[in-house]
Amino acid sequence: MSHCLINGQALSHIDARHRGLAFGDGVFETCFSQQGRVRFLADHLDRLNRGIRALQLRWEQDDAEHLLVEIQSLLDPDNAPAVIKIMLLRQSQGRGYDYDPQRQTTERIVMRNAYQPPDWVATGARLVMSRRYASSNPDLAGIKHLNRLDSVLARQDARNQQAHEALLCLPDGRLVEGSMSNVYLRLAGRWVTPELGCAGVEGIIRRRLVEAAPLGLGCKKIDKTEVPKAEAAMISNSLLGLVPVIELAGRPLAPPEPDELTLFRRVAGLNHV
Amino acid sequence: MSHCLINGQALSHIDARHRGLAFGDGVFETCFSQQGRVRFLADHLDRLNRGIRALQLRWEQDDAEHLLVEIQSLLDPDNAPAVIKIMLLRQSQGRGYDYDPQRQTTERIVMRNAYQPPDWVATGARLVMSRRYASSNPDLAGIKHLNRLDSVLARQDARNQQAHEALLCLPDGRLVEGSMSNVYLRLAGRWVTPELGCAGVEGIIRRRLVEAAPLGLGCKKIDKTEVPKAEAAMISNSLLGLVPVIELAGRPLAPPEPDELTLFRRVAGLNHV
Repeated sequence: MSHCLINGQALSHIDARHRGLAFGDGVFETCFSQQGRVRFLADHLDRLNRGIRALQLRWEQDDAEHLLVEIQSLLDPDNAPAVIKIMLLRQSQGRGYDYDPQRQTTERIVMRNAYQPPDWVATGARLVMSRRYASSNPDLAGIKHLNRLDSVLARQDARNQQAHEALLCLPDGRLVEGSMSNVYLRLAGRWVTPELGCAGVEGIIRRRLVEAAPLGLGCKKIDKTEVPKAEAAMISNSLLGLVPVIELAGRPLAPPEPDELTLFRRVAGLNHV
Repeated sequence: MSHCLINGQALSHIDARHRGLAFGDGVFETCFSQQGRVRFLADHLDRLNRGIRALQLRWEQDDAEHLLVEIQSLLDPDNAPAVIKIMLLRQSQGRGYDYDPQRQTTERIVMRNAYQPPDWVATGARLVMSRRYASSNPDLAGIKHLNRLDSVLARQDARNQQAHEALLCLPDGRLVEGSMSNVYLRLAGRWVTPELGCAGVEGIIRRRLVEAAPLGLGCKKIDKTEVPKAEAAMISNSLLGLVPVIELAGRPLAPPEPDELTLFRRVAGLNHV
């Protein structure tokens, strides 16, 4: 059973001429919810706001209030875990890429779907290197916009190699992220995660970890040639939480120490995954 | 009056959960049509095929035949110029970026809208440099996919400076294209157009010109610092045709010689714009 609201109405379809479809002109979030609440809701709203500013979407106090009501109305009163997906799309009259900033509107789509974390969240993830490149644009880096073809292409590399996730790099060799996750490596005893100044999505959990810097975790330019030197690795996203990596680019990897994982999860606010 | 077909049906809306919206997982074309025919139809279909291969969309002989019938059925028998927009979108079961390549389908959207070329096509275009970057990804360069946020952002720079088009560069300074057009510069007597190996859309007219190489036109790495040295410039897209540039980055520019423009238009197959 699934549920969808478009601007607060129980609708499930949008105009095929919508700018959201034509250009990917919008942003989105996928949030974990359970027991009638959304985990990391403030963080998701914060990232939406960064996306709104980056794309210069129209967003008034009213819109923000409507969105909260709509999210609340979709929450399941029972215990079942679910994904709340939020999309904010620019709509405007006229044709082509142009829009009148004074006459644009932002459409809200909120959906709920049942969610069951995959088994490997508990057992650990097998990661491969994607032969696809991360899309790069400093104007769009970090935000969770709707231009996600690089992740779509990389995801097939994971599928083709029976892996759980595929890591993307830039053409210059810099590691960026997984197709659906941020990545953390322990290199020469220090935990690092790739800088996202040019490409990638700044994940909710990544942001929390980078701010708290457990065990000195820092952002760094990481070349793909450093990946095989990792002593341990983790990936994160808002739905999966923090997941230990047990295989990296064809090589078995010892999972992070239980203490490391416990600390990172606590700092990220993931008391139980 | 406008018309829309989705998989051959007179429909105008798509599911809000569609991968086309969620990820921009598809390709499109905007074609000029008049007098019951589509200009450059074979070229547009050819570029669609390159996009289909790049995204590994499912596309059988049947799909191609249906698409042609749908385009034909939307053509206006009268004389009015129109845009035929084609979108091919991947759809598949399941959630997230993943899809089963054996179970994907490709949905066809074909629309017709009235088209009137803007006045400045005849008088010449004023171009500014966008402060926005072109999105870069060698896996996606050249094809006309639905991840077009860079063009959306750059278009606002044209609007804000009352210009007709804004040119985008990569962070390393390389010129790529306009927000909705390819660009040609005469530099030290030679006509050149930016290489599109990392970013940009390979336009129909650009491809025709590069293949025929009138006056020695060639693809080249062009740094943005070379733009002010241009002696003449043109832009092209399938709807506008080839348009002389009369102002470039705040500097008035003499339009190309009439002979140059005539030759380029003839070579491109634009006998009358």
